[in-house]
Amino acid sequence: MRYDIAIIGSGPAGLSAAINAKVRNKNIILFGSSNLSDKIVRAPVIDNYLGIYNVNGEGLKNAFRSHIESMDIKINEERATNVYAMGEYFVVAANDKMYEATTVILATGIEYTKPIKGEEEFLGKGVGYCATCDASLYRGKKVAIIGYNVEAEQEANFLVEIASNVYYIPIYKGNYSLDKNIQIIKDTPLEVKGKEYVDRLVLKKSEIDVDGVFFIKDSISPKYLVPGLEMEKGHIKVDKNMHTNIKGCFAAGDCTGKPYQYLKAAGEGQIAALSAVSYLDTKKNN
Amino acid sequence: MRYDIAIIGSGPAGLSAAINAKVRNKNIILFGSSNLSDKIVRAPVIDNYLGIYNVNGEGLKNAFRSHIESMDIKINEERATNVYAMGEYFVVAANDKMYEATTVILATGIEYTKPIKGEEEFLGKGVGYCATCDASLYRGKKVAIIGYNVEAEQEANFLVEIASNVYYIPIYKGNYSLDKNIQIIKDTPLEVKGKEYVDRLVLKKSEIDVDGVFFIKDSISPKYLVPGLEMEKGHIKVDKNMHTNIKGCFAAGDCTGKPYQYLKAAGEGQIAALSAVSYLDTKKNN
Repeated sequence: MRYDIAIIGSGPAGLSAAINAKVRNKNIILFGSSNLSDKIVRAPVIDNYLGIYNVNGEGLKNAFRSHIESMDIKINEERATNVYAMGEYFVVAANDKMYEATTVILATGIEYTKPIKGEEEFLGKGVGYCATCDASLYRGKKVAIIGYNVEAEQEANFLVEIASNVYYIPIYKGNYSLDKNIQIIKDTPLEVKGKEYVDRLVLKKSEIDVDGVFFIKDSISPKYLVPGLEMEKGHIKVDKNMHTNIKGCFAAGDCTGKPYQYLKAAGEGQIAALSAVSYLDTKKNN
Repeated sequence: MRYDIAIIGSGPAGLSAAINAKVRNKNIILFGSSNLSDKIVRAPVIDNYLGIYNVNGEGLKNAFRSHIESMDIKINEERATNVYAMGEYFVVAANDKMYEATTVILATGIEYTKPIKGEEEFLGKGVGYCATCDASLYRGKKVAIIGYNVEAEQEANFLVEIASNVYYIPIYKGNYSLDKNIQIIKDTPLEVKGKEYVDRLVLKKSEIDVDGVFFIKDSISPKYLVPGLEMEKGHIKVDKNMHTNIKGCFAAGDCTGKPYQYLKAAGEGQIAALSAVSYLDTKKNN
């Protein structure tokens, strides 16, 4: 099965893209969180989203949720970790599954977590963003998982069945639901070190020998999510129609640039969806 | 008194610009209609404005109206007919009044009424878009007013006190509240003729000798509203920040291009307002 549009992100841009695509009868898959957007939920008061006022983030989120539920739009909570442009379609890798879509709309938000030293340098050489995807490479090896959110715990629990040692470094507070064989290290990761491949993770108070380090974050920088994607000053480069440099790949919301605002993001999500619809029509007629 | 921001248009783009400017404590003047937008009111059902669903145009309009009323934003119903860039500020001419503003946001929508033959050619040479503004030029002369809306009747009633003959050609149905000295012609205007200046208006079934012809429309093409404004394929040319080619002049909504959608317009109105705010801050700090 091939979807018309895969939408990555469930903030205002992704949701707006989803409802606009659905209005146009497109077959969509929406990757995101049942919580929609952590950023929205935290907002104390929102007064500048035209038509909805005097609400807090929770209120705006509820308005968005009612809207997508009324249109029977579901959120797939698997984490999309790679988008591959195959020419006439895209493959979206999410955990250990693959999904095909003719077009993709990136609405991944803005990356708030800066990479640590060595993280980018060793990406693909022992550093990864999806432990379940790459688990087979670490059979009998030592792996550190740096968890930025509670979902990271699942990845650690999965990996511990395969790796010899799993170290879990949580960047959040909580009651960690982890396998008893996972070693929790409450410390701040500073640097990934190695020669050709990763061999060491340096933390503030200690260092550990590792063969791999996974960073499990809410959002992956789009340039790692989509190989070949053109960026501009830390944002995805788009034209007026929200088209990226990759044919059939669109972007919307904070990931395309400032201002980081819900209404701006929603407006761009709409443009991206309608551009994707036009693109699909062109393909159908050729 | 000089306003921080003059906003021209009360559709979603103009209203969104207004609430965003107000949230930033800017001193604004908003030109528009108490009806907000004729286009919205006519929409039978709107499902693609994220967060507000299952409403008709009237419902969406009411949500917008409640929002601006909650922020004490008033609409000035005078028709802005000219915007002059003075370097450090703008002058907005509305009927016979002048307003000063440091920045301008154009949210004039899209021009649905095509100019008739000769209308553009004779603009400023007997053709005008504001009868009350230019009335003094037509003392004792013969003037035709082509009224696209009910507001045009006021202009005709004003002009009849000065001109020798006023012909009123309504492009809408209604009960015309016109001075008894105004001659109503129910016919379709086809062409404005003249040599150096206008001397004749050609209609489908008749021709009349005139010294001037006023077209009173809901929206004036931005290129006539703002001398020197750069256009691109019939739309106002803007950059990513909604800045036009004129310093301090921004644009948002349908007037900047497709898709003609409420949410896209509202998103752009927000960007334009925040860009105007940044521009104002820069000026203050210099």
